Amino acid sequence: MSSKDANTDCLGWAARDASGVLSPYQFNRRTLGDNDVFIKISHCGVCYADVIWSRNKHGDSKYPLVPGHEIAGIVEKIGSNVHRFNVGDPVGVGTYVNSCRDCQYCHDGIEVYCVKGSVMTFNGVDYDGTITKGGYASSIVVHERYCFLIPKGYPLASAAPLLCAGITVYSPMMRHKMNQPGKSLGVIGLGGLGHMAVKFGKAFGLNVTIFSTSASKKEEALTLLGADNFVVSSDQDQMMALARSFDFIVDTASGDHPFDPYMSLLKTSGVLTLVGFPSEVKFSPASLNLGMKTISGSITGGTKETQEMIDFCAANKIYPNIEVIPIEYINEALQRVVNKDVKYRFVIDIENSLK
Amino acid sequence: MSSKDANTDCLGWAARDASGVLSPYQFNRRTLGDNDVFIKISHCGVCYADVIWSRNKHGDSKYPLVPGHEIAGIVEKIGSNVHRFNVGDPVGVGTYVNSCRDCQYCHDGIEVYCVKGSVMTFNGVDYDGTITKGGYASSIVVHERYCFLIPKGYPLASAAPLLCAGITVYSPMMRHKMNQPGKSLGVIGLGGLGHMAVKFGKAFGLNVTIFSTSASKKEEALTLLGADNFVVSSDQDQMMALARSFDFIVDTASGDHPFDPYMSLLKTSGVLTLVGFPSEVKFSPASLNLGMKTISGSITGGTKETQEMIDFCAANKIYPNIEVIPIEYINEALQRVVNKDVKYRFVIDIENSLK
Repeated sequence: MSSKDANTDCLGWAARDASGVLSPYQFNRRTLGDNDVFIKISHCGVCYADVIWSRNKHGDSKYPLVPGHEIAGIVEKIGSNVHRFNVGDPVGVGTYVNSCRDCQYCHDGIEVYCVKGSVMTFNGVDYDGTITKGGYASSIVVHERYCFLIPKGYPLASAAPLLCAGITVYSPMMRHKMNQPGKSLGVIGLGGLGHMAVKFGKAFGLNVTIFSTSASKKEEALTLLGADNFVVSSDQDQMMALARSFDFIVDTASGDHPFDPYMSLLKTSGVLTLVGFPSEVKFSPASLNLGMKTISGSITGGTKETQEMIDFCAANKIYPNIEVIPIEYINEALQRVVNKDVKYRFVIDIENSLK
Repeated sequence: MSSKDANTDCLGWAARDASGVLSPYQFNRRTLGDNDVFIKISHCGVCYADVIWSRNKHGDSKYPLVPGHEIAGIVEKIGSNVHRFNVGDPVGVGTYVNSCRDCQYCHDGIEVYCVKGSVMTFNGVDYDGTITKGGYASSIVVHERYCFLIPKGYPLASAAPLLCAGITVYSPMMRHKMNQPGKSLGVIGLGGLGHMAVKFGKAFGLNVTIFSTSASKKEEALTLLGADNFVVSSDQDQMMALARSFDFIVDTASGDHPFDPYMSLLKTSGVLTLVGFPSEVKFSPASLNLGMKTISGSITGGTKETQEMIDFCAANKIYPNIEVIPIEYINEALQRVVNKDVKYRFVIDIENSLK
């Protein structure tokens, strides 16, 4: 297969308007550059971000829009200057596919904070002016810097959710030194991100408590995911019994919720990290000041840390819990994501269903 | 003078009800204990907290209420087991006068976060059940642990505001490593706390910008306080020109104000520390997440750090800008504090006016 053949024959599923309904869509990937890898996509995870932009929730969607930023596949071609990958390597691509590669943050390997702006994997405007298209597609062409090696033997379907859900919780956990055994971790929300936080927490030797709005996931959270404790957040007695007991809480909830009750659960100098996007964050200053507590924000992670996280998952046999679906099911799947009806991440079997 | 004589003859000024009007009030200090020092108060700073509790703003005021937690004076007597102080030493007392002295935080010298609760210097309930009375008084008896040595030659009138205003901004600046020359500091609000943050900032070699609601303090801020930049926060052009340029912002404003505009001024991984008490803190999660920014709270500091701060001020000739007043002026002074009409801290000349 020539480079030209490969690049002009990409089949994806795209939303055409704010209805967000996806359907088949033929388009071109760019010609392979010297530093690019051409990836035949095998799997793509389904993230709430796919709903946001398919349905134009932020008002900046550019149609036709091909979602997907949890991409796993096999390298099929490499540019002449590619050093990190060979044809046949299993690789992943996450939430961004370009950055200036010349600023302080790029040099530090946290390209997502690039001064000139990192380029999102889909619905982003790349430096050449093209609109990026995501992983609900048969292939993708990406500069090798934004690709990650998936260790041999680690299932590609399982690897996909690591690229967004995994790194998004791993990064703040590492930044706040939550890889120290014995510390106490609270996880708000038990979706794709939350269930990965529980898995990392247990791998780090933490005492893990899940806060959920519903008791329906309790049994599975304790047995299947191995959490130490499960609290229904509306149960004030349970909440009060945990006052001042957490070193760290990772808040993955994107629905609106109060913050003061969770702040009261932090120890002195405890940290709540926000990785979700509720409509606003609101709390009493006393919740922060009395006990020198911290609320810290985070999105995804840099390339260096993403590779480290993937390797950590492989070494420690950490696998997301996934529901593999064919691409034909994607519209129902996206609605189930909205309804929080997924345990715990949909992954599209691109390889076997997108033809 | 016998211990008994000293302790039963304390003259203060107290509020009798929520009007907050202060007038002379005679009361007893406790008998000197083995670990206590008896301090003849020479000066006491006037903090907004004095307004809050004199006027029962939080609904928990216990009258008669003697305010004041920025206390400076001379040791007049010491208990048999006192080791750190001698009669004649110039000393200070800050915002708390007791703690359990047995928990993790007390052992770490951050007694203000004591698990059993540190005891506030006035309107607090001490471990023996008595209600504490503050520094608008001729004397005070305090366990030596909560006293600080004021270096010889450092004026007692200047020392008083260090005990609350000074340590409240010094502590988070040190915690967030803002004593590294070249970093950029923003200061919101130019009152007692804000002007001390500017002074510490310049002593640390920082580039200091003041954000104020009014231009009236600009000239003095730049010339007298030595700030590098002064921004009227309602001037959107000035604000936007400073986007992503601050390592750290200390927010001393207790009036309600938006947070998103200030969050946008922080660099990636920048920190805004809140030391004031507005009615609420509210912002968009994007302000926090995009750029992994942090909002952190703080109140005063531990005993170890307070002594360190006082010594730093003496060594670097850092003096608060004060307006010394007689006790008879206190009711007008408190109203001027409410009106933000003070440059930058009132200090009561207890020694010469309270007789």
